[in-house]
Amino acid sequence: MGLSDYLKHAARRVDEYIYSFVTGTPKELYEASLHLIRAGGKRVRPALALLSSRLVGGSEEDALPAAAALELIHVFTLIHDDIMDRDDYRRGVPTVHRVWGEPMAITAGDLLFAKAFESASRLLERGIEPGRVVEAMRVLAKAASTVAEGQALDMMFEERWDVTVDEYMDMIYRKTGALIEASARVGGLSGGASSEEVEALGEYGWRVGVAFQIRDDILGIYGSGEKLGKPVYSDLREGKKTLLIIYAMQHLDDEGREFLKRVVGNPNASQEEYRRAAELIREAGALDHAMERAKKLVDEAKKSLSRVDARDEEAKEILVELADFIVRREY
Amino acid sequence: MGLSDYLKHAARRVDEYIYSFVTGTPKELYEASLHLIRAGGKRVRPALALLSSRLVGGSEEDALPAAAALELIHVFTLIHDDIMDRDDYRRGVPTVHRVWGEPMAITAGDLLFAKAFESASRLLERGIEPGRVVEAMRVLAKAASTVAEGQALDMMFEERWDVTVDEYMDMIYRKTGALIEASARVGGLSGGASSEEVEALGEYGWRVGVAFQIRDDILGIYGSGEKLGKPVYSDLREGKKTLLIIYAMQHLDDEGREFLKRVVGNPNASQEEYRRAAELIREAGALDHAMERAKKLVDEAKKSLSRVDARDEEAKEILVELADFIVRREY
Repeated sequence: MGLSDYLKHAARRVDEYIYSFVTGTPKELYEASLHLIRAGGKRVRPALALLSSRLVGGSEEDALPAAAALELIHVFTLIHDDIMDRDDYRRGVPTVHRVWGEPMAITAGDLLFAKAFESASRLLERGIEPGRVVEAMRVLAKAASTVAEGQALDMMFEERWDVTVDEYMDMIYRKTGALIEASARVGGLSGGASSEEVEALGEYGWRVGVAFQIRDDILGIYGSGEKLGKPVYSDLREGKKTLLIIYAMQHLDDEGREFLKRVVGNPNASQEEYRRAAELIREAGALDHAMERAKKLVDEAKKSLSRVDARDEEAKEILVELADFIVRREY
Repeated sequence: MGLSDYLKHAARRVDEYIYSFVTGTPKELYEASLHLIRAGGKRVRPALALLSSRLVGGSEEDALPAAAALELIHVFTLIHDDIMDRDDYRRGVPTVHRVWGEPMAITAGDLLFAKAFESASRLLERGIEPGRVVEAMRVLAKAASTVAEGQALDMMFEERWDVTVDEYMDMIYRKTGALIEASARVGGLSGGASSEEVEALGEYGWRVGVAFQIRDDILGIYGSGEKLGKPVYSDLREGKKTLLIIYAMQHLDDEGREFLKRVVGNPNASQEEYRRAAELIREAGALDHAMERAKKLVDEAKKSLSRVDARDEEAKEILVELADFIVRREY
């Protein structure tokens, strides 16, 4: 099975589990909570957890409650991020707060967060030893704390023009890398990995995760709005301090810098000004630089992966393909 | 030691643990997260967890990570509720979103939620057996899901005038009872309780919790703003459908009902109109009815407690005193 088919397979398994598990009253709350899950998404995190379990000799079955937990945490952060960023569209549909209002959206996110830990505790019923279940839940909790830190940093960076590349890399590790790292770790823990193997999987995960975010930042400026399910140039409008902006600010002349400062984060700038900003950023070499960084991370991720003695060759091949996919994806 | 001294003792222990555990960067996020914890609060939930552990023969030490987790979940819900209710003051200080803005407040709540599960996983380091730790974490997660459901119901009730007493009782079980039930359960689990004892402690907990919420609703209309650290009549202004309002709507004549409909939930009503509404609600017998219900719940809670074979008489006495305190507290 190739990556594309595997992602579909993982999505089917995990979605089925989530829909049977995340039910209750009031109906409005559960509808709001499941809205973005129903809207699609790639299910990269659960796929990574299922594959990591198989890689070390476990089954997908073993890791399913953890895989679902990862998607639930991911979607919870999306719901809250959309409120904070005042985003209107995600995965091609109106965001949760646009449909149900902010109070219900905040609560819907909180519900998914709680359900994630309920789900992870069910690893016990799959016969995973209790010590490993606690460790998996701790990894999830630590990742969620780290994501909150990353989200706070991201917001604080929006008001600054002097963010350094190091600060940026630290921020995206926290905001995106940590949860993808956790995906590989809890998959490994569920599947019976040794502690060295859990570490190697964690390294693979955060490197892939950080590369994923860099690619996301590239798509946030140069991607197709249609494929992404959200408006083009949204990152420019919101003034996100991405690697591309930071690099461009360091490599443009005064005139270019002034132009970016005027346009990036200015919701009243014209579409033509955003287009010109995107062009300037590319001319500064920022797009090439970002792609090189992402590719280097993916190469290192594959090296980390090779430290795990693969008990399932297909799982290993898909994990390698997943790493490669990260840097060439268009959505 | 009496209840009042015990609450101070529990607060000191739990706060010390929380302040050493909830640290990190960015500083702004951690400051926002700890703001309401620093502002005070009774620490009823952690006290209940510590006492429940002692009651069944465990130590306070054993239950400390779980006790801290309960306060962290509680404060996380307060931060998010204040955003949703647009409340400006809590525990006598400006609410988190008033000081740091909504996006940072949402994230601060999310951080505390994650830290709660990190904390609970540390029960392992106190020598609690892993199966019990998973069970405690599951109880916490289930309670947090239930609180989200209760919060959603509470919001939905604000727009309805036909909420029944049964619907109300179900809502406050979820919004308040479930987390206090969880406090007693995880304390028992940490302290080595049998499953029957965990059940009995859970019953004690939710009954005390529901009584606590009824008393809260009484104080929300008849309490002193100064003692509560928030404006008087705030529940009337927000249109909360409390037991008192529901009862009054069922027992007033048409004129009284029309007056309540006009004033309750109307932010433009005058202080004099709120005062008159409070008087009408009392005249309808709602205050007496609510107090009777709360007292009955507290009596039943004490019966549940007596099903646990007390290994620590002082802990038992304080738990009984805590139940009694619930219905006479003024803050």
